[in-house]
Amino acid sequence: MSKIESVRTTDVRFPTSLELDGSDAVNVDPDYSAAYVEITTDDGESGYGLVFTCGRGNEIVTAAMDSYGELLVGRDTDELVNNLGESSRRLVHDSQMRWLGPEKGVSHMAAGGLINAMWDIRAKREKKPLWLLLSEMSSEEIVSAVDFTHIRNALTPEDATDILEKGQVGKEVRIAELKADGYPAYTTTPGWLGYSDEKLVRLSKEAVADGFGMIKLKVAGSIEDDRRRLSLAREAVGPDVRIAIDANQRWEEQEAIDWVNQLQDFQPYWIEEPTSTDDILAHAAIRKAVHPIKVVTGEAVQNRIIFKQMLQAGAIDIMQIDSTRVAGVNENIANLLLAARFETPVCPHAGGVGLCELVQHFSFFDYAAITGTMEDRVIEYVDHLHEHFTEPAVVSNGRYRAPELPGIGAEMLPESTSRWSYPDGAVWQELNAR
Amino acid sequence: MSKIESVRTTDVRFPTSLELDGSDAVNVDPDYSAAYVEITTDDGESGYGLVFTCGRGNEIVTAAMDSYGELLVGRDTDELVNNLGESSRRLVHDSQMRWLGPEKGVSHMAAGGLINAMWDIRAKREKKPLWLLLSEMSSEEIVSAVDFTHIRNALTPEDATDILEKGQVGKEVRIAELKADGYPAYTTTPGWLGYSDEKLVRLSKEAVADGFGMIKLKVAGSIEDDRRRLSLAREAVGPDVRIAIDANQRWEEQEAIDWVNQLQDFQPYWIEEPTSTDDILAHAAIRKAVHPIKVVTGEAVQNRIIFKQMLQAGAIDIMQIDSTRVAGVNENIANLLLAARFETPVCPHAGGVGLCELVQHFSFFDYAAITGTMEDRVIEYVDHLHEHFTEPAVVSNGRYRAPELPGIGAEMLPESTSRWSYPDGAVWQELNAR
Repeated sequence: MSKIESVRTTDVRFPTSLELDGSDAVNVDPDYSAAYVEITTDDGESGYGLVFTCGRGNEIVTAAMDSYGELLVGRDTDELVNNLGESSRRLVHDSQMRWLGPEKGVSHMAAGGLINAMWDIRAKREKKPLWLLLSEMSSEEIVSAVDFTHIRNALTPEDATDILEKGQVGKEVRIAELKADGYPAYTTTPGWLGYSDEKLVRLSKEAVADGFGMIKLKVAGSIEDDRRRLSLAREAVGPDVRIAIDANQRWEEQEAIDWVNQLQDFQPYWIEEPTSTDDILAHAAIRKAVHPIKVVTGEAVQNRIIFKQMLQAGAIDIMQIDSTRVAGVNENIANLLLAARFETPVCPHAGGVGLCELVQHFSFFDYAAITGTMEDRVIEYVDHLHEHFTEPAVVSNGRYRAPELPGIGAEMLPESTSRWSYPDGAVWQELNAR
Repeated sequence: MSKIESVRTTDVRFPTSLELDGSDAVNVDPDYSAAYVEITTDDGESGYGLVFTCGRGNEIVTAAMDSYGELLVGRDTDELVNNLGESSRRLVHDSQMRWLGPEKGVSHMAAGGLINAMWDIRAKREKKPLWLLLSEMSSEEIVSAVDFTHIRNALTPEDATDILEKGQVGKEVRIAELKADGYPAYTTTPGWLGYSDEKLVRLSKEAVADGFGMIKLKVAGSIEDDRRRLSLAREAVGPDVRIAIDANQRWEEQEAIDWVNQLQDFQPYWIEEPTSTDDILAHAAIRKAVHPIKVVTGEAVQNRIIFKQMLQAGAIDIMQIDSTRVAGVNENIANLLLAARFETPVCPHAGGVGLCELVQHFSFFDYAAITGTMEDRVIEYVDHLHEHFTEPAVVSNGRYRAPELPGIGAEMLPESTSRWSYPDGAVWQELNAR
């Protein structure tokens, strides 16, 4: 019998604040970081998970992972990875630790990191990338992985089964298509607030030349800057490429409405995070007032219960799932099924560290075995930090290529986790010595 | 110039799971715990804060407090404690750590613990208990302490000023009244799920004899048990004492409606936490469907933005603020002002460790300088673990007595924090040796 031998965490940080990559109206100086976790078994297996953070506080998430790890060490590996619904609930609903959220913030993300590492072991055992593992699982096992607590008024296990059964039709053809042609991407690379106009224009043109049908610009610094930058970007990409804009929760409700409406001239496709992601009612009001610009959110949506309400209230046009904000693969399946139930497209959030590598699997799974469509669906792509992963996300001609290696995509190169470990890795030692 | 010298945390846990005190439908085996923090200055001052948790995971909150502490050590004490609005924002909106919430869960509670410790220094400098400090502060300073981010669509600084200016009228009389007569309490002591029928009846009768006008029972184990226990309690207390019931988020929306309506015979006064506290829309639906039973929530409401929406959506009849769930005194002032703006009574959540000691100050302040009324307002009281505090909450004849010692009420006895420190304190060493 295989047992969980250890849960080891590493605080990995990249000093991205030294550049202005990743800067927006709220996250002014992020050091893109990963609270990284490896679960090992006494049979010599390893599973990897991570939680993305912006630098300071990454050590709180690793501490939380260590704590949740104590609930796993010594347990039967087979029992855990063959019953991932139950394994997830064991962490998320631990009777004492539940108070720390419940189901939100540091504790929820940390639990999610460990849940993902268990999925990584499962996928490696089956020698499949996560998206294919999920796509080929029985509807019954997928449904058993979902926690329907507090979403049953919008999605029952029966609803989920219906959706998944419909998703079976034509699945094999779609899997072949994904392997051949991948899935559409959009890029945020041109649009960081810290970039000069010249860099914005140059990168926007490059994005179009690289085959992207959509780019994203950060906004909400000043309305004059936003109008100027959007005008430049629109001129650079032409009328047919979509331009999304992203305010990173900077505004109050009325402020969002007034500001966004002053940008209508440039036909932005969506406004992302116009206000607090906790604020379902404000999103609903903003969505009504800025039509036809779409309202989207999700990278900071704490759990399926908030997403459910966003959908019930007609507060969003598009759901942006995130691979490390919620309780792992299980809760992301719940989110995909909720979106399907409300016929709302999912356009995942990515970037940061490892988010592209992880989140792509959910869109591939969604196309293969849930909605069967790519219409108005794109995965975010940011071109940095991929080189630290054993299987870096690959985007070419504006499309994500299907991941092929077994696992969930979170495994990093040992050289990377060592050199960038904080504060003792070589890179940080050097920086501190300056 | 005084500087912050240290931020020291202690993981304090009481093995309450050995009894069945504190058991409910969700929290089945809590070890009531405090992530305890002492901020010292190089002038020899000390300020204390704490975050209540249910045991496992308390170490994650202390780790988070240590991290936030690094943002304070070495800073000018006067600047911090004389500008508590700015000091709060410095922690809550730290550009990198914000990602961990934002404004929710472990990181938010930990920041709140430190913010409270800064208020403790301020109150001790002014030699006033917190409630009196707040009641005697200028409206301007109170308003400057509030973070209006993402609540301006319901409460502007101007609204807050108006409310506080009205609260000035008759304030001195009300302060005198509070000092003489205190503030009404209710008790949860009889109602834990783990208690026998005999104990429930005995404690219910004792509560009435002790002068309480309301008791609270935990529900949601089984409908038969709930009907039997409510019937026994109603018989024990008579028709005029209010009985509140509390489901600790156990139900789905429709389940809550069906279940609660089967308890209407026994005239429960309110149903607390019928479902997830994240679920504003479900609370609104439940409230409509279980009238005249009131719907209340708050001990797990993560921040002012969720409370705001609960009020906007007509989802609650009563707001239950909690002293350690949100970002400290500042955010609780925001919550009190939101409640006042929506003419909704505040009945604070207490119990746990230190929650009675801390939260009472907000009701006293509310009566003295905000709403000026106690109508339908009561503070929860649970009679345990008070002996560990330098100024234990005192309830007599069903009323909280006004705290008198300078500070916010979080300071514990050094013997207690030492004996019950986890895992090295004497009590835990003994338990582990068994």
